Amino acid sequence: MSDFSPPISDIRFLIHDVIGLDTVSRLPPFGETSPDLVDAILEEAGKFASSVLAPLNRVGDQEGAKLLADGTVGTPAGWKEAYAQFCEGGWQGISAPESEGGMGLPILLGAAVAEMWQSANMAFALCPMLTSGAIEALTAHGSEQQRKLYLSRLVSGEWTGTMNLTEPQAGSDLSKVRSTAILQEDGTYKVSGQKIFITYGDHEMTENIVHLVLARTPDAPAGVKGISLFIVPKYLVSDNGEIGARNDVTCVSLEHKLGIHASPTAVLQFGDNGGATGYLIGEEGKGLAYMFTMMNNARLAVGQQGVAISERAFQQALEYANTRKQGRDSKTGEEAAIAAHGDVQRMLMRMRSSTEAARALSLYTASQLDLAHHLSDADERAAAQARADLLIPLVKAWSTDLGVENASLGIQVHGGMGFIEETGAAQHLRDARIAPIYEGTNGIQALDFIGRKVLRDQAGALTALLTDIKNTINGVREDNEATELAHACDALDHAISELERSTDIVLERGARNAEMAQVLATPYLRQAALCIAGWLMLRSLQMVKKAGTPEDLGLGKTQSCLFFFGQLLPEADFMAAQVRNCTDPKML
Amino acid sequence: MSDFSPPISDIRFLIHDVIGLDTVSRLPPFGETSPDLVDAILEEAGKFASSVLAPLNRVGDQEGAKLLADGTVGTPAGWKEAYAQFCEGGWQGISAPESEGGMGLPILLGAAVAEMWQSANMAFALCPMLTSGAIEALTAHGSEQQRKLYLSRLVSGEWTGTMNLTEPQAGSDLSKVRSTAILQEDGTYKVSGQKIFITYGDHEMTENIVHLVLARTPDAPAGVKGISLFIVPKYLVSDNGEIGARNDVTCVSLEHKLGIHASPTAVLQFGDNGGATGYLIGEEGKGLAYMFTMMNNARLAVGQQGVAISERAFQQALEYANTRKQGRDSKTGEEAAIAAHGDVQRMLMRMRSSTEAARALSLYTASQLDLAHHLSDADERAAAQARADLLIPLVKAWSTDLGVENASLGIQVHGGMGFIEETGAAQHLRDARIAPIYEGTNGIQALDFIGRKVLRDQAGALTALLTDIKNTINGVREDNEATELAHACDALDHAISELERSTDIVLERGARNAEMAQVLATPYLRQAALCIAGWLMLRSLQMVKKAGTPEDLGLGKTQSCLFFFGQLLPEADFMAAQVRNCTDPKML
Repeated sequence: MSDFSPPISDIRFLIHDVIGLDTVSRLPPFGETSPDLVDAILEEAGKFASSVLAPLNRVGDQEGAKLLADGTVGTPAGWKEAYAQFCEGGWQGISAPESEGGMGLPILLGAAVAEMWQSANMAFALCPMLTSGAIEALTAHGSEQQRKLYLSRLVSGEWTGTMNLTEPQAGSDLSKVRSTAILQEDGTYKVSGQKIFITYGDHEMTENIVHLVLARTPDAPAGVKGISLFIVPKYLVSDNGEIGARNDVTCVSLEHKLGIHASPTAVLQFGDNGGATGYLIGEEGKGLAYMFTMMNNARLAVGQQGVAISERAFQQALEYANTRKQGRDSKTGEEAAIAAHGDVQRMLMRMRSSTEAARALSLYTASQLDLAHHLSDADERAAAQARADLLIPLVKAWSTDLGVENASLGIQVHGGMGFIEETGAAQHLRDARIAPIYEGTNGIQALDFIGRKVLRDQAGALTALLTDIKNTINGVREDNEATELAHACDALDHAISELERSTDIVLERGARNAEMAQVLATPYLRQAALCIAGWLMLRSLQMVKKAGTPEDLGLGKTQSCLFFFGQLLPEADFMAAQVRNCTDPKML
Repeated sequence: MSDFSPPISDIRFLIHDVIGLDTVSRLPPFGETSPDLVDAILEEAGKFASSVLAPLNRVGDQEGAKLLADGTVGTPAGWKEAYAQFCEGGWQGISAPESEGGMGLPILLGAAVAEMWQSANMAFALCPMLTSGAIEALTAHGSEQQRKLYLSRLVSGEWTGTMNLTEPQAGSDLSKVRSTAILQEDGTYKVSGQKIFITYGDHEMTENIVHLVLARTPDAPAGVKGISLFIVPKYLVSDNGEIGARNDVTCVSLEHKLGIHASPTAVLQFGDNGGATGYLIGEEGKGLAYMFTMMNNARLAVGQQGVAISERAFQQALEYANTRKQGRDSKTGEEAAIAAHGDVQRMLMRMRSSTEAARALSLYTASQLDLAHHLSDADERAAAQARADLLIPLVKAWSTDLGVENASLGIQVHGGMGFIEETGAAQHLRDARIAPIYEGTNGIQALDFIGRKVLRDQAGALTALLTDIKNTINGVREDNEATELAHACDALDHAISELERSTDIVLERGARNAEMAQVLATPYLRQAALCIAGWLMLRSLQMVKKAGTPEDLGLGKTQSCLFFFGQLLPEADFMAAQVRNCTDPKML
């Protein structure tokens, strides 16, 4: 079993030196977010991740969640205790408003910490991730009464939250949701229907579970505009907050999945005995719009799972490569650890460099969400929101694809041992494989990117970002004569020109024909992600070349950045060729 | 559970129209290999694959192989019966010499048939694959007595064979083998030691198992030259072929693996009770050289597993995409199967086109092995052998990497259902993941390619092949005015120029420095594989444009080829950039 060492140095470097803590600490609510506070929180979170969550990762995979004979859902040994410790630490509320009992810290910091939970134990970390979504939905759209009854207990972690969207016939296409909600005389609704793929849909770690459920009211129009959002608690809650009777919702089965075995993926049956009592959030017909308000954070969080599993797989592969002896050093002829062999180094560097690039992109994106919420100027808020909206599908799709690729590489570094389950390397691939699928498949992300984020504003937000990138390149060129930085600037400059060319193609062909946009979307997304992450890698290389960079990052970070420009960024040209060569939407 | 439909049309097209059956049927031993015979065998094999082997694939995954309390190894329900049917069909001996009881058919045909076994049920097909290796070793190096006692029963499938190479400390580096073999007065040896990762190392499907074991004699030199190869039968065999006492070899455990659960991967303990009786094959000290003689076929066979699992995953994904309804057709606005969506089409085409390209490369390579064995002219035999040697690592590494990539894409096409084990899509990824590792990791393949196959002959064999490719391009250009073919020629022409540039870099930097060769090897291999497979895709496109192509291939094959040139071949430029940008061997 591998240990997990929280990547605090790299996270600190990104927050303090690349993104700049002042980017967020100058925002009104975060005046007290000092560098020391940030470091202290990262340390504490890292400790919890490595000492409590990481050791449970393997037992979670082996035992899995189980639907027991009495109809309850059992979590693996140690799960409930770890969850209690998680709540004691106040971690669930790290980025929740102080008014609701949270710590009120920046999303940037919340994201940094969440990545460590996901690295340590993805199946566990899904639970707080889903609760965060419920917190966000209720913070934005819940009534005062709903916030009083449910929100504070979600923020404390006393109860957990779920998202009930998918039905057997309604996956990527939520217009097909059939669950119904019928208004009762007392203002509540009776909710009926079957929801599938409900993460932590049932468990016994907390006394209650707050299900947020998409359902249709009887006279609602067809399609997505007829869908409303309801609170359906597992146990009913009295007006003064006491837990009452069991609501009419049952876990009828758990899925047998490739990975994240410890995360119970439930089929929930609502209303088999007259209807589950549900409480409308906001207004009828706006359910999907409310879901969209929390989608950015959820997609960012899933993207971070890709970063997290890449990090964990990299650490394990590096550890193995440093200890496994095979063959001889091609220079000295001495017996060598496999990490000394060039091809193994290539695999390790590919894992490390792509992980760091994706981490930079995810944390930068988190910082843009803070800006979008708290900048004083409305136009600047809108610009930050547009940038976050632009980047979220890149973080989600690119990072989760990388998660799969890197977990697979991690197995490869282990050779035959990687295929043996006891080694633990295979679990990372099995766990990682869900992330490109849920919270909007990566294909859906690409369509979101090309359609809503590029075509809709005629690449306005993208052009603004590319201007910033070009300014960075020009600034680095003016300040520096170092050959390595010059090469990196040239590589990025070229990649950005190609991205502009692809964008022109997208604007031209995609606008003409929706089918064309669908066919172009995936390579265009990956091209954009590589280029924008390349910007952050250039800023990283620039900072690490300056004095004052933490020693433990110095040389390794330089190598990681140079590997990115020499070996990974050229993939953007491959993606550009795919875009350019897409001239016929009817490919099959 | 998905059905498997043998890809006989594509295989027939490749054998008859692209490779040309006369390439092999003009060789002396294959005069009777008529087109009708080939078609009949493909039909029969396809029927057996789809009706007997494929239905056992899922139960094999679920039940797995088990080490039972009595020390025997149990295979899943139906396995033993299917194996008996396999033997009845004479399939084990398809390419074995008629003098040993085989069918004596070309390796090309044997490979075509083997791909179908692997598609249908990879965990099952491993057993005959390993037996084939033992057949080849004994055919080439066994004494008359050894051939009489063991070979005919391997060819008939009455007994199965295994390869015992790996030990805990000796994986990619076989110089570290420690198992010992001590000569006895009667000329036999006492073999002791532990071997791991032994595929079908034990089972009860046959009365006996013929283990081929690498071990060291007491006075042998250190390193690979001290290793000899021994026959160690599970049960001793009398001189007249009767099965006698149990030999001193026991299966002490089976590995718990990510995939191919039904294939027993054994830890075999030799000699715990005085030494297992072993019979030297050939001469002492030549064990590794003997192993190498069968390595080409074994690596080709593993490469085909990548093709096979890609094909199976593609078929399953296509079936799902054609039936799962989500969203609406972007043109008609009608409810649509997901196969109508551009991004899903992209995934399906990527799977199909890469599978067909890799199949073409593997079958072409098989035909070169036939030429290498049976051409009358010694120089021509040597040239064909050199070409096969050049291509084998490409087939093994590229196809198995594609197997993983395509199985992963297959899951993605299924969305959430892909992550649920019952769907069966996830099994393909779990099974596929071993192929880049065993029979020489893909990193080892890349080193073999760059070192033994390119640097050693100063790219002689590669240059000869590139000349053939350029001749094809020129021929197509002269004969054809079709725009599609012209584009394909241009794309391949460019890719070949870049491959020549990379080869110059390899010859220059790689010769200077062994470390550099290691760092360049993997992208250089993939670049070469894409280019050479592109040649066969150009020939396919050329043939399909001619009259007389089977109707069921026509349009689909054209699209598949065009997708290759527009969307897949450009990856070769990405790989070229990786090679070009490798200027420092010390990357980590």
